[in-house]
Amino acid sequence: MSNLVRMSVSLDRDLADRFDREIERTGCPTRSKAVADLIRQSLVRQEWADGDEVSGAVIMVYDHHTRGLGGRLTRIQHDAVHLILATQHFHLDHDNCLEILAVKGPPRDIARLHEKLAAVKGLKHCSLAAATTGRELP
Amino acid sequence: MSNLVRMSVSLDRDLADRFDREIERTGCPTRSKAVADLIRQSLVRQEWADGDEVSGAVIMVYDHHTRGLGGRLTRIQHDAVHLILATQHFHLDHDNCLEILAVKGPPRDIARLHEKLAAVKGLKHCSLAAATTGRELP
Amino acid sequence: MSNLVRMSVSLDRDLADRFDREIERTGCPTRSKAVADLIRQSLVRQEWADGDEVSGAVIMVYDHHTRGLGGRLTRIQHDAVHLILATQHFHLDHDNCLEILAVKGPPRDIARLHEKLAAVKGLKHCSLAAATTGRELP
Amino acid sequence: MSNLVRMSVSLDRDLADRFDREIERTGCPTRSKAVADLIRQSLVRQEWADGDEVSGAVIMVYDHHTRGLGGRLTRIQHDAVHLILATQHFHLDHDNCLEILAVKGPPRDIARLHEKLAAVKGLKHCSLAAATTGRELP
Repeated sequence: MSNLVRMSVSLDRDLADRFDREIERTGCPTRSKAVADLIRQSLVRQEWADGDEVSGAVIMVYDHHTRGLGGRLTRIQHDAVHLILATQHFHLDHDNCLEILAVKGPPRDIARLHEKLAAVKGLKHCSLAAATTGRELP
Repeated sequence: MSNLVRMSVSLDRDLADRFDREIERTGCPTRSKAVADLIRQSLVRQEWADGDEVSGAVIMVYDHHTRGLGGRLTRIQHDAVHLILATQHFHLDHDNCLEILAVKGPPRDIARLHEKLAAVKGLKHCSLAAATTGRELP
Repeated sequence: MSNLVRMSVSLDRDLADRFDREIERTGCPTRSKAVADLIRQSLVRQEWADGDEVSGAVIMVYDHHTRGLGGRLTRIQHDAVHLILATQHFHLDHDNCLEILAVKGPPRDIARLHEKLAAVKGLKHCSLAAATTGRELP
Repeated sequence: MSNLVRMSVSLDRDLADRFDREIERTGCPTRSKAVADLIRQSLVRQEWADGDEVSGAVIMVYDHHTRGLGGRLTRIQHDAVHLILATQHFHLDHDNCLEILAVKGPPRDIARLHEKLAAVKGLKHCSLAAATTGRELP
């Protein structure tokens, strides 16, 4: 399926050696993967800066006893159904919930959704994790 | 349910004013929440540096056509069942999958799990998003 | 000289206790300073996102034996004299130089200057550290 | 002077194309440099996690009218002369100073120095920027 090209680069020998040791330490199977991973990470950062569509996750932690909190989170999510693929909910302990929204859409819209959720009273944590749709990231 | 105390701090008047404008811009409902959110963010960073248990998410994007990839990811996840609460899987398009693992456990173990998954050939993206169990984060 | 106001916030008692322990661990002298520091950090991030003027540093490491490198760095810096307050240069060892540019100006212009310097062949490291002019940050 | 090796990697053609466009956008002169820069950035992060010696900068902004502030900063710096290469000081405006400490030493010691400085009352900003000595980073 894939469509590979050889890319040949000149590297200082000592830099190549240190890179090889780092590859071994992390368990990365090949140099090609290690280089491609670094390239992809830089491209994902760029997609969030000026791309049309990204994916990611909004991660929230809250005490479900907080009055009205669940309802507010649900209403905001329903206004953003076009951005949210699904919501996963975990009962971490008697009090605390972990809720993970899988999201896809324009980076600015997702950032705005995150900001709206983060403004809800009673949340202990609300962060946005940046990923990619993979569509333009081979 | 909650157990509130008043905390009174001295702030430069102009700093307080700028903070209030920023609170309004982001839609945060009260100063108390805005201050508590900043405190919690700093404590979550600290939990990942020296805490016993955290929660979070591992976010992966890959082309499901890649031979053997699904199996490798599944095997690594089965060796870490004590860290993984659940896995959520999305078909982003004909080729690309978004997979989000909700995780909970010691920060070093979660970091190691992320490193193992990230080393799998064929992944386009594999990042770790840090959150909290909320248990010691009121 | 300063112009203080009292800001009183309601915090969960356990959150306030954890914050106090963190304040003690880091050696921060008062709660007021700890809160103000968190607020200022969030405002500095915002200044870089949408402010008019910021300060900061561009940090470069390079081997001074690299042919033409010093000249190229100097030419780029001379085209940006309005952004660069001064350049500090250190001979780290026989080969390596550390060069720190103190910068002040519009955040986009500083980011562009950093990008131009980072593109110079022979640099081992070129990063941009974000700070503030302090003018609107009491 | 340098001691180059060819490193040849297999990349998906579309990934290589996107990387080339990104290289052109940023003005990076060659693929070899772009790849080496990504590798070096990952190695600098690793040096700060488990290395013996790094370099960097501590960046502070403060109002020089704040009573006793200059003296406290100076005393802390004198206790850390083995870590501080030099201090550069700028009068940003009538009130605000930008002070940049060039630092070199074990990453934990530099982090501790930064923490001590950050705890000083009256600072508006105190951040630590991570770089490298370049000695083991060709």
